[in-house]
Amino acid sequence: MSLPFDGAISRFLAEDAPHHVRAALDGAGTKEIVTPGYPYDRWMAKADYECELSALQLELVKLQHWVRRSGTRLVILFEGRDTAGKGGAISRFTLNLNPRVARIEALDKPSEDEARQWFFQRYIERLPQAGRMALFDRSWYNRGVLEPVFGFCTEAERARFFVQLPAVEQMLIDEGMHLVKLWLEIGQAEQLRRMLARERDPLKQWKLSAIDVEGLHKWHAYSAAITDTLARSDFGFAPWTVILADDKHRARLAVIRKVLSSVAYHGRDDALVGVPDPAICGGPELRLGNGRG
Amino acid sequence: MSLPFDGAISRFLAEDAPHHVRAALDGAGTKEIVTPGYPYDRWMAKADYECELSALQLELVKLQHWVRRSGTRLVILFEGRDTAGKGGAISRFTLNLNPRVARIEALDKPSEDEARQWFFQRYIERLPQAGRMALFDRSWYNRGVLEPVFGFCTEAERARFFVQLPAVEQMLIDEGMHLVKLWLEIGQAEQLRRMLARERDPLKQWKLSAIDVEGLHKWHAYSAAITDTLARSDFGFAPWTVILADDKHRARLAVIRKVLSSVAYHGRDDALVGVPDPAICGGPELRLGNGRG
Amino acid sequence: MSLPFDGAISRFLAEDAPHHVRAALDGAGTKEIVTPGYPYDRWMAKADYECELSALQLELVKLQHWVRRSGTRLVILFEGRDTAGKGGAISRFTLNLNPRVARIEALDKPSEDEARQWFFQRYIERLPQAGRMALFDRSWYNRGVLEPVFGFCTEAERARFFVQLPAVEQMLIDEGMHLVKLWLEIGQAEQLRRMLARERDPLKQWKLSAIDVEGLHKWHAYSAAITDTLARSDFGFAPWTVILADDKHRARLAVIRKVLSSVAYHGRDDALVGVPDPAICGGPELRLGNGRG
Amino acid sequence: MSLPFDGAISRFLAEDAPHHVRAALDGAGTKEIVTPGYPYDRWMAKADYECELSALQLELVKLQHWVRRSGTRLVILFEGRDTAGKGGAISRFTLNLNPRVARIEALDKPSEDEARQWFFQRYIERLPQAGRMALFDRSWYNRGVLEPVFGFCTEAERARFFVQLPAVEQMLIDEGMHLVKLWLEIGQAEQLRRMLARERDPLKQWKLSAIDVEGLHKWHAYSAAITDTLARSDFGFAPWTVILADDKHRARLAVIRKVLSSVAYHGRDDALVGVPDPAICGGPELRLGNGRG
Ligand SMILES: Nc1ncnc2c1ncn2[C@@H]1O[C@H](COP(=O)(O)OP(=O)(O)O)[C@@H](O)[C@H]1O
Ligand SMILES: Nc1ncnc2c1ncn2[C@@H]1O[C@H](COP(=O)(O)OP(=O)(O)O)[C@@H](O)[C@H]1O
Ligand SMILES: Nc1ncnc2c1ncn2[C@@H]1O[C@H](COP(=O)(O)OP(=O)(O)O)[C@@H](O)[C@H]1O
Ligand SMILES: Nc1ncnc2c1ncn2[C@@H]1O[C@H](COP(=O)(O)O)[C@@H](O)[C@H]1O
Repeated sequence: MSLPFDGAISRFLAEDAPHHVRAALDGAGTKEIVTPGYPYDRWMAKADYECELSALQLELVKLQHWVRRSGTRLVILFEGRDTAGKGGAISRFTLNLNPRVARIEALDKPSEDEARQWFFQRYIERLPQAGRMALFDRSWYNRGVLEPVFGFCTEAERARFFVQLPAVEQMLIDEGMHLVKLWLEIGQAEQLRRMLARERDPLKQWKLSAIDVEGLHKWHAYSAAITDTLARSDFGFAPWTVILADDKHRARLAVIRKVLSSVAYHGRDDALVGVPDPAICGGPELRLGNGRG
Repeated sequence: MSLPFDGAISRFLAEDAPHHVRAALDGAGTKEIVTPGYPYDRWMAKADYECELSALQLELVKLQHWVRRSGTRLVILFEGRDTAGKGGAISRFTLNLNPRVARIEALDKPSEDEARQWFFQRYIERLPQAGRMALFDRSWYNRGVLEPVFGFCTEAERARFFVQLPAVEQMLIDEGMHLVKLWLEIGQAEQLRRMLARERDPLKQWKLSAIDVEGLHKWHAYSAAITDTLARSDFGFAPWTVILADDKHRARLAVIRKVLSSVAYHGRDDALVGVPDPAICGGPELRLGNGRG
Repeated sequence: MSLPFDGAISRFLAEDAPHHVRAALDGAGTKEIVTPGYPYDRWMAKADYECELSALQLELVKLQHWVRRSGTRLVILFEGRDTAGKGGAISRFTLNLNPRVARIEALDKPSEDEARQWFFQRYIERLPQAGRMALFDRSWYNRGVLEPVFGFCTEAERARFFVQLPAVEQMLIDEGMHLVKLWLEIGQAEQLRRMLARERDPLKQWKLSAIDVEGLHKWHAYSAAITDTLARSDFGFAPWTVILADDKHRARLAVIRKVLSSVAYHGRDDALVGVPDPAICGGPELRLGNGRG
Repeated sequence: MSLPFDGAISRFLAEDAPHHVRAALDGAGTKEIVTPGYPYDRWMAKADYECELSALQLELVKLQHWVRRSGTRLVILFEGRDTAGKGGAISRFTLNLNPRVARIEALDKPSEDEARQWFFQRYIERLPQAGRMALFDRSWYNRGVLEPVFGFCTEAERARFFVQLPAVEQMLIDEGMHLVKLWLEIGQAEQLRRMLARERDPLKQWKLSAIDVEGLHKWHAYSAAITDTLARSDFGFAPWTVILADDKHRARLAVIRKVLSSVAYHGRDDALVGVPDPAICGGPELRLGNGRG
């Protein structure tokens, strides 16, 4: 069985990658951070990470229990560039949760019929009912970032999206949803490194889509679309949380802590939950803080 | 088979109706207008009505043809108190139309599941696709008028409805819908007269619901809710058309003319379509103009 | 605005119609029956028809009342060739019914998404809930007759349809639906006459679809598909009712009587309802009885 | 936060568990098999399991790739008593799969509206489209086993289920689905052991539902319902696979091997996939083979 994108990533590294990206990867150890300006040099040690993670798991289970009992509706959006770690963060989050309570919503590209409906409709249909949570692996923000970069929507459609967006999110909140919007941010060299790893690992090759491969060449268009999108959708009533996700361990812990600290569930162990590490977790300004964006 | 509301309407007439209502009905001929301030004394003559109606039917067929060809999405809301003539206007409108193109949407009271969703959701799911029209026999405006009067929604839910409403209707329009909002207005004596007629006619008794009967006693609460609703939802981008509907003939012609003149379909016979009679068709101010409301 | 099928029907009459069809139309009066073997010479007189119809309307209203109270689920399929009078029969049937109780389901050709689902799915989703009736203007039987004749389905799909059909209808019945399957049958000359009338009447021209026009040329293919379909789907638990519909008046009365006599609703006036005229209403054998089919 | 079922399981062990169950648990080591007649004494060693599992992961990725390219529709039902390991098997199965391709469907108890629809409807709506797979964590077989045991359906509803079942599954297959039905079977002592572990582990306490706790007392009613269900639904065109799941390691490998060997995907490494271990994987007779059932 031949692979879908034989060597496209290595070729990009060899031929097209900017010099600073190539330099950053050169000789970098696997757990070494290659993104300039990242507040840590290396990934958090695995043992520490696992220890914290498993303590937090119990809090997630309490959160779930409370969501169910109180009839809460919790919506969490996981956004970020390809390879930013959305899927991995979601699977750690849901590891001990009940799939009948915590649903993962990974919507496909719109079908022909869906493409003719109101853009938000298929998302609205998948909002959680009382006592449930929905974790969206990508969301309506595709229309802010990915779709324009790939030409999947027109400029007019994107403009309309931004006009409707505040009203739609306001409604969700009016309807009693808790909405947490997470942006996982990674650097250009780190993204390339992860794609190279996927290219080499037969298990992960499926994760490489045409969109990822093409996306490599569109780093700057993406950056502009992201900066614009976050600026225009960081509403007081529905703010963005940006998590610097070059270190997957720290990022996953921050994701979980962010959600836990956003919801005042019964029995929360505040000492344990604490606050997400402010060095890697903040508002949209964090993204721009260190030469990203 | 015993009737559902034996005599409840006559009883209302005998015992509870305000004096001026009783007086208005006293000795009034069937085609005589009993609503004070109505710009005409009597119904339009049947022959004239039928002649105009059948000329307009051809225009409706042209409209339908154009909607289909051009991929237009036309949404018409029929609103008004009980017995105002929504159903009758819809059936004359659709008489010669293709049910695959012009759908009538008469939504039931929300099911348990629907009651838990976003209020607008079930309406949004029934919006017409390209090349289709939807005629709503009652609509989301139930939440502005009928639901609060009968205690089917809370004050907070009604307040939320009005916050979301402009955004929702704006979106429909952004999505390319043509939206026509029609309010059929009748006077109190006229309403009672129509209910008495239903009470007497076994064929029409089914049309009497508990809501109608109770509604008789809530005329003023209704009036206040209507005035408030029309004032708060007469948007520049989605205005209300009020039609004084005490004369069913004139009202139906005005409904059709209003819709025909709102859509610039190919081949429109402007001389024939003309404009709806301004004496009975205008904005919300028309309702208040003559002691109604 | 130019007409969609200018003169196609007259051209068919002049050039392609079989001799016996042309002969039958030659000089026939409008209310004269042109189908050989029809048990009556002329349409039922309008006055008699209207008198019976309005008596039956009251029974329909009682039926509706009972459906609602008893939580019955009533499904009526209206099938037949183009111009057989499905739409007209439905509108007389529903004239005095509440659109929130008696829904008309006129499904469009399947969307791309629907075309990929299980064939029966979109029909199942539109079955009535308890206390409601659904009148289908065409139904899943499209796959038995119209789709193969026009090449909209493959032979294999049609074969699968017939394998699944008894199980599906059995399920509906197991789920507590009352299912009435009506086939409106007309002769070839009568069909052509109706199409000619549509061609001449600007109001009715919209009813002429490409399918109708092409269908004229496929009379025999249709006949074979109909005969085959009725034979294979006349189940003991869900039999067909064939109504010879060349006389629209008698046909509509038979439709209503058939439904009324199929449901044992409370308060039925058996003397009035009686049985549908056996000369024009029976099983599939009736179709073949007089040189049709 | 107090726990939902404090001590209910230990109490069952102390007071109600049959003698042979208590005896089997007495002094049993964690990886020791406590189910009489199980073909192995101990769980498969973790290292061996992980090694085989990761080799099979690559095959699952190839399967996914092929499903997508070929437009296959793959449906896998995971059934079994509480604690049988359905959820764990599903998460190992999907570990490296794309959530946009391989969806997990864990349906909640039916909503009021769903309870009024055709029983199979909500499952049918969740069948995968072309190029997708759906893993059902419990399925329509709830109506065969769990619902009658807990009184959630009537005998008549269960009878109807079995009448409709062959037709429904036949249709799925006619519509081009690949259907794999997996029954994970565990012994009574093993089930109790797993529940005790859940009781003690705060992380897993959420997995204890009222149904689990009550279910302990209904072992024999369950057994009878399972035996009956498997016997009546082991169709030639849609057979059951029973997997003796007391050893979770072996069971998960067998689940994956069973699915991989059922689908002739491109590039399958037959030497690696092999066949599922026949000592723990077979037809319904396997369940009864050793005093289970
Ligand atoms: N033609 C399209 N129009 C709109 N969105 C699309 C289109 N093609 C792909 N997408 C969306 O792009 C996103 C990224 O796709 P892909 O990279 O394949 O998935 P993943 O995020 O799982 O790696 C998905 O949300 C997908 O729905
Ligand atoms: N491509 C198609 N595939 C399947 N069914 C179709 C297709 N095109 C039309 N139909 C069906 O053919 C039937 C007849 O169409 P038409 O003659 O336009 O409607 P009507 O019955 O209202 O006159 C409708 O039920 C329609 O859904
Ligand atoms: N009242 C009910 N009617 C029908 N099914 C029910 C009812 N209550 C629970 N169920 C079903 O019982 C199954 C088992 O429930 P539970 O033990 O809570 O879930 P899990 O399998 O996730 O442990 C689920 O499929 C659920 O949908
Ligand atoms: N309990 C309810 N909650 C909300 N709307 C209702 C309720 N009962 C009736 N209605 C609506 O009231 C309108 C008139 O009802 P009826 O007169 O019964 O046809 C319809 O639009 C119904 O959907």
